[in-house]
Parts: sequence; C-alpha cells; structure tokens
Amino acid sequence: MERLRLGVAGLGRAFSLMLPTFLADTRVQLAGACDPRGEACAQFEADFDAPAFDDIEQLARMPDIDAIYIASPHQFHAAHTRIAAKHGKHVLVEKPMALSLAECDDMIAACRDASVHLIVGHCHSFDTPYLRTRELIASGAFGDVKMIQALNYTDYLFRPRRPEELSTAEGGGAVFSQAAHQVDIVRLLAGSRATRIRAAVGKWDPARPTEGAYTATLWFEDGAFATLSYNGYAHFDSDEWTDWTGEMGQPKNPDDYGSARRKLSTVASTAEEARLKAAGTYGGKAYAAPSRDRADVRQHQHFGPLIVSCERGDLRPLPDSIVVYGDERRERIALDAPAVPRREVIDELVAAVHGNAAPLHDGAWARGTLEICLAMLRSSDEQRDVLIGSD
Amino acid sequence: MERLRLGVAGLGRAFSLMLPTFLADTRVQLAGACDPRGEACAQFEADFDAPAFDDIEQLARMPDIDAIYIASPHQFHAAHTRIAAKHGKHVLVEKPMALSLAECDDMIAACRDASVHLIVGHCHSFDTPYLRTRELIASGAFGDVKMIQALNYTDYLFRPRRPEELSTAEGGGAVFSQAAHQVDIVRLLAGSRATRIRAAVGKWDPARPTEGAYTATLWFEDGAFATLSYNGYAHFDSDEWTDWTGEMGQPKNPDDYGSARRKLSTVASTAEEARLKAAGTYGGKAYAAPSRDRADVRQHQHFGPLIVSCERGDLRPLPDSIVVYGDERRERIALDAPAVPRREVIDELVAAVHGNAAPLHDGAWARGTLEICLAMLRSSDEQRDVLIGSD
Repeated sequence: MERLRLGVAGLGRAFSLMLPTFLADTRVQLAGACDPRGEACAQFEADFDAPAFDDIEQLARMPDIDAIYIASPHQFHAAHTRIAAKHGKHVLVEKPMALSLAECDDMIAACRDASVHLIVGHCHSFDTPYLRTRELIASGAFGDVKMIQALNYTDYLFRPRRPEELSTAEGGGAVFSQAAHQVDIVRLLAGSRATRIRAAVGKWDPARPTEGAYTATLWFEDGAFATLSYNGYAHFDSDEWTDWTGEMGQPKNPDDYGSARRKLSTVASTAEEARLKAAGTYGGKAYAAPSRDRADVRQHQHFGPLIVSCERGDLRPLPDSIVVYGDERRERIALDAPAVPRREVIDELVAAVHGNAAPLHDGAWARGTLEICLAMLRSSDEQRDVLIGSD
Repeated sequence: MERLRLGVAGLGRAFSLMLPTFLADTRVQLAGACDPRGEACAQFEADFDAPAFDDIEQLARMPDIDAIYIASPHQFHAAHTRIAAKHGKHVLVEKPMALSLAECDDMIAACRDASVHLIVGHCHSFDTPYLRTRELIASGAFGDVKMIQALNYTDYLFRPRRPEELSTAEGGGAVFSQAAHQVDIVRLLAGSRATRIRAAVGKWDPARPTEGAYTATLWFEDGAFATLSYNGYAHFDSDEWTDWTGEMGQPKNPDDYGSARRKLSTVASTAEEARLKAAGTYGGKAYAAPSRDRADVRQHQHFGPLIVSCERGDLRPLPDSIVVYGDERRERIALDAPAVPRREVIDELVAAVHGNAAPLHDGAWARGTLEICLAMLRSSDEQRDVLIGSD
C-alpha cells in the first residue's frame, strides 16, 4: 500500500504526543516539517531524513506531500490551514480547530474550494473506547441516551506553559484546550444535536490568568442532557477512577503525587517556564524520544471518567474495556490493547485521503465543538443559557 | 443523665432507617408512637412497652414526651409539626422539611411561638465525614472553597414505592427525596450563601412518573460553584467509587447486581408494590429487625462520591476517612467507625433539648435547602437560572 506522505507544521507538544503514532504506523511517512525552532528542525531532519523549514509556505510547496498535520499554536490553525489547502494538501489540524467560528468557516471553505479533506484531531473522541461505545449505543440495544456524566480532575494548569497558553484571548486555558476533548466526546456519544448550554468557569490563579476549571450542562435536541466537569487545578486525580491509567493510556503511579506543582514551584519566571517547556519538547535538550519498546504496552487513551446512561443500560468506556451495565446483568467487553497509539486518527486520515471517505471529525463537526466551547465562555460571563446553532 | 423521651409520628421507612440509632443510643427512649397501620402500632407496643396511637394528636398529648420525631409522609410534615409544637414538644422532622416554603415558614413560626426547637433530619449532611470535612475547611488551612463535585448513581426509582412517592406534586421523586440530601451537604461544605441554580431533571419512566434524575449547577455568593448530579435510574452504582460501601455504611456486594429492578419486575400492580413496601417496613410481615450484633460494624453513612476543591487542596470525604489532597502531599485522615449509626442526629437533638444549643440543621437552614430543591424543579421547567433568596 502506498504510504501517506505527511508534512508537519509545528514540532511542539502536540507533535510530540502524535510522534509515537507516526513512528509505529507504517501507513504514514513523515516527509517534511516546519517550525520556528532551529533545534527542532535539525532533530527532524536527522530523525526522518526529510527537510524541515522555518516557514510553512516552503513545506506546503513540497510537491510530494499528501497532507499537512497542523500542530502549530492554536492561533495559527486557520492561517496554516489556508496555506496547506492553497497548495492542494489535505489537512489534519489539531484541536481546538481555531479560536472563532469565522476562522472555522474560513478553513472549511478553503478546504472545500481546494477539494482537500479537513480532519480535526487528535482529539480524545478518536479513542477506541468512545468509538465502540458509540457503536453500542447506535445498535439500539440500550434505547435512547438520557444522561451523560463526564468529569476530569487533572494538574493541567500547572504543567509548563508558554505565556499565550495562559491567555484565553490567544486560545489558552481549559475551555479551548480541554473542553475541546470533553465536548467532542459527549457530542459523539449523545448522537443528537446540542441545543443549549449553561456553564461556569473557574479562573482561580492570578499567576496563571486563564480558565483552569469549568462545569457545564449541555442539552440535546432529543431531550438528553450531559454534565461536563473539569478541574485543571485539581489535587485529586480522577485517573484513580480509571484504574490508575493516565490520559495517554500509560500506567500511572499513585505515589507520584503533586509532581506538576512541585516542578513548577522551582520555576522563577514565565520566560524560564517557556524555556522549560521548550526543553522538554521535540528537539529540546531534555526531550525524551518515545519508546519503541513493544513491552511498553499501553491501554487506550482516555479523557476521564464518563458514564452514558441510556434507557436500558449504562455504558462506561474505560482504557481497557467497556463496562455495560444492563437491566439484568453487568458485562465487561474487553478491548484489545492498541498496537499503535491513536491509530484511529491515521485510520480516518488514510480513509479520507486514499479512500475519499468522508471523515467523522471533519470541519463542520469540529466547528460544532468550538461553538459549544465559545458558548461555555459566554454563558459563564453572561450568567445565562446560551443557545447553540442559533447565531 | 436524663434520657430524652421521644415520640415517633410515622413508623414507616424513615423510622426503620432511624431505628438502629434509637436502639443503640442510650440517650434516647422511645416513649410513644402513632401510625395508621395497626400492625406497626402493635409491633411498637410490643417492642418498646409504650403506647402507639392511630392519631398524632393523642401522641402529642402525652405529657411525658420531650420531642416528637416526625417521620410521616412528606405531605404531612407541616401539619404534624404544628400539632407537636402546639403541645409543647420539640420537633425532629424528616427531610424534606415540607413541600413548600409557606409550609416551612409556618413550621418555623409554630416552633418559635411554642418555644420548642425544630431540627430537620436525618439528612446525610449529619454524617461525620461531611461534618469533619466542614471543620477542615473552616480551619482555613486550604483556603477558600472553589468547586464542589457531588454525584450519586443509585437504583432509587426502582425500590418499592407507594403511589404518592412517584408523584412530584405530593412530594415524591428524586428532587424532594434525594436532592434534599445532596443540596444540604453541598451547602454545608460551601459555607457561603447559595445565590442561583440551573438544573435539568429527568423523568424518563412513564410507569413511575416523577423525577428520577437531575443535574444542577449551584452558585455561591463567594464565587464558588458546585455540580450536583443524581441518577436514580442508574445501572452503574457509584458506590463502586466509595470502596463498595453503601449509603447506610454497609458493605455492599458488587455481585448483587440489578436486584431492585429484578424484584420490581415481579410486581404486577401499584397496589401490590405498596403492599410489598409495607410488608418490608416496621410491623410488616417481611420486616427484618436491625441487628444488634456489635460484629456488624459499619462505616459512616454517605451520599455518593464528593470532592471539595479549595485553593490549596481537595478534600474527599469517604465512609471511613477523609482524603486530603494538599499542594505537597496526600494524607488520609482515618475516622473511627461509628459506635451508633446516625448518632450525630441525637447529638444535635440532645444538645438542643437538654442544652438549649441552637441546632445546625434548624428550620431556617432546612428551608434554604428546600428553596433550592424547588428552584431546581422550576429551573428545569422554565429552562433558565433561578435566583435563590430573592422571592
């Protein structure tokens, strides 16, 4: 089979989280990259024997690239998508899709006009446990979805950040970064159009002045509702309710308590923090390359405890299984451990680029998730319900 | 010490849940009762060598009774409180306090005019883990409360019911019965006045036409917010996240799956269901008296997983401990197993009646909880925020 030749725009944190996938999935070949950091470009050229530029235009002009994975900071997603589409490249763009609905519309139009596919991800709604749960719901065996509970308690706000990641106006904070996952998962499972939302956000740390927490109720056209809660200032780690399996599917040591806060407390300035983040990123001097060791078996990735309550059963996706709580019995559907992490993203990308299959996570879908995230900010600010799909 | 002589109005389910307390707490003597069911009265007279009437007036007229525990159906709480107060008896009334704020005002006035104490309970906000968590918060060691998450997934709606318990207008359903616990606990821990609520309720079973589920966001004057979720149609049992300790502090067998639904499915009519409930209640032919076996050690009672997030720590009350997740370390504060279940209720009652100490769970406090429960129903119905304390 022909390998999909992928260019990478942005060799930062998002890329480093996708790298294990690119290394393990033989359907993809990394054929070029761009990044403003020279050390990242040098590392890429050494690792993949492919060119890396300081500018996306040069990458997009490469004739033998099929698609560009846009993993640049959020505020560049729209502009970079336009450039990729202009050069006829399919687009895989990281979440959040963009920072405004106007940008989303622009990206969708640019890709449509260029007849290229637009896929938004990785997002945890690609994770197999959620996709399989969606199939179970779609089978009709459990009746309609009535209520979804999704929560996640993490140390999100205390991980090393660049200043823009702590500025909501620039796309920072838990709503743009984290609700983008949770809303997407919940929409996928609800299977009905979201109609309104009421949210409260928490901005509790003056030194890190963006949203670190939220809670929201999301209503759907068919009458179902969902509760979404996120606390990125948390001391409690909700992975305790996922058998101590972390977001990346990795086993987590419960005794490694408070490490993000501890590490951050040694950092003297925002500049030092940005350097710390850069150092741990691809090409940085503290960067640890992903293990290729097959013994390093992981479970599926996830985004916190979640329960879907249907008329005739509750479904609970977990990193290694789906627990089906039916009217009469409880059953655990085991899931094979993933041979390649996030291979679901490559499945969707290859199906679109080589099979011309319409992606699930296309621009219109991801625009819907961004609309809800923006509505969360507005609902909290204006202290009222915000209707979805009406403006 | 002088024993507190208690009359019991209503020998139904609420009484049977308090009976282990009355049997084990030597500070209390059951001195009389009333109930419309002759078999319950006969059982009471046999068990306690004290009179039982079919009418609360006769009970309230007994001269040597200090207080009356009003455990009659919700819709009688107000009238029965008035009668007890008129006869100079202190009142311990079950939650929910009443069905309307006007009834609450009337009960508060009747007790004030008669110079008797009014305590509302049992309610799970009496449970030691919550009271101790409140003390930890009040110590100031963790800073302000910012966010509370409370959830509970149970088979509430499938337990045997009388028809009125499935009618919201008569005080039935999960908001009156179950939010009464959860709201009370959350208010107690927040320590700030609730100002607004937005809720969604679920009424999903036409055969049991009352609220079985809800989700709500509750805002407080100091800026904190709380998420409260309850699913009484659940197949998932959230006691799984409380080390399989049940609401009554009892060990729960995870393999006893689906028993409430299974049992209910054998019931042919609402009349048969009411008989089933009566049979399992005090005086009924299937009633099992509480064990007096000291080996039957239980943990503290609880009302589902709950996390309080403060500025410098998260607190998680559990049936046997409070887990304190601080900035630097995680610590488990072990709680002694309760020698007497729900003794906290008797503590508060004795302190009020014998020590004239103002109770925490007084009429004004419980009225505040009912106001929020009523606002939940209205918010869901009118699809908007409802302000608290403004009408």
